Amino acid sequence: MSVIANTPKPPYYAVIFTSTRSEADNGYGEMANRMVALAEQQSGFLGIESAREDIGITVSYWADLESIKRWKANAEHVEAQKNGRQSWYSAFKVRVSKVERDYGL
Amino acid sequence: MSVIANTPKPPYYAVIFTSTRSEADNGYGEMANRMVALAEQQSGFLGIESAREDIGITVSYWADLESIKRWKANAEHVEAQKNGRQSWYSAFKVRVSKVERDYGL
Repeated sequence: MSVIANTPKPPYYAVIFTSTRSEADNGYGEMANRMVALAEQQSGFLGIESAREDIGITVSYWADLESIKRWKANAEHVEAQKNGRQSWYSAFKVRVSKVERDYGL
Repeated sequence: MSVIANTPKPPYYAVIFTSTRSEADNGYGEMANRMVALAEQQSGFLGIESAREDIGITVSYWADLESIKRWKANAEHVEAQKNGRQSWYSAFKVRVSKVERDYGL
């Protein structure tokens, strides 16, 4: 169950991960849940939003680039990234961006 | 049918629009399709990605902040934003961010 992330006042960072899935399952759902739980434990983590239809979009929010770099290098995450490239995703794009302003309802 | 956007080399801008829907329908689907078609005609538009499950995430990509400002002020879009606030969305968040790097598969 994904909700709108309760992020602090900008500036902060957003990692936009867009993907299309392959046919391969072999533990994808478990891995995806585990990666969210693990990300939430990292220092600098601010929130995560996720939805999938034709494509999957997961946006994670971070305090700074250092936190993003550490999360990318996390051993368990590195293993998941490897399986993602080799098996789970037919294509993906990661975009690292700096949130400059936000507003909402 | 949403696909991974074929964006140019960074830097460029991403507008991350995350929302939860109300029960109200009254033309939501038509409006959403029309807004994508209209956005694609704007100068500075680079691409759009969208998916909805518990929450909807639409990320539109733009060449610069000027293009985002013009799109926000587009008359037909202003009308859709008004209906969005009053009827279609129970909550939403708009985050304007600058994409600094990207990579993918």
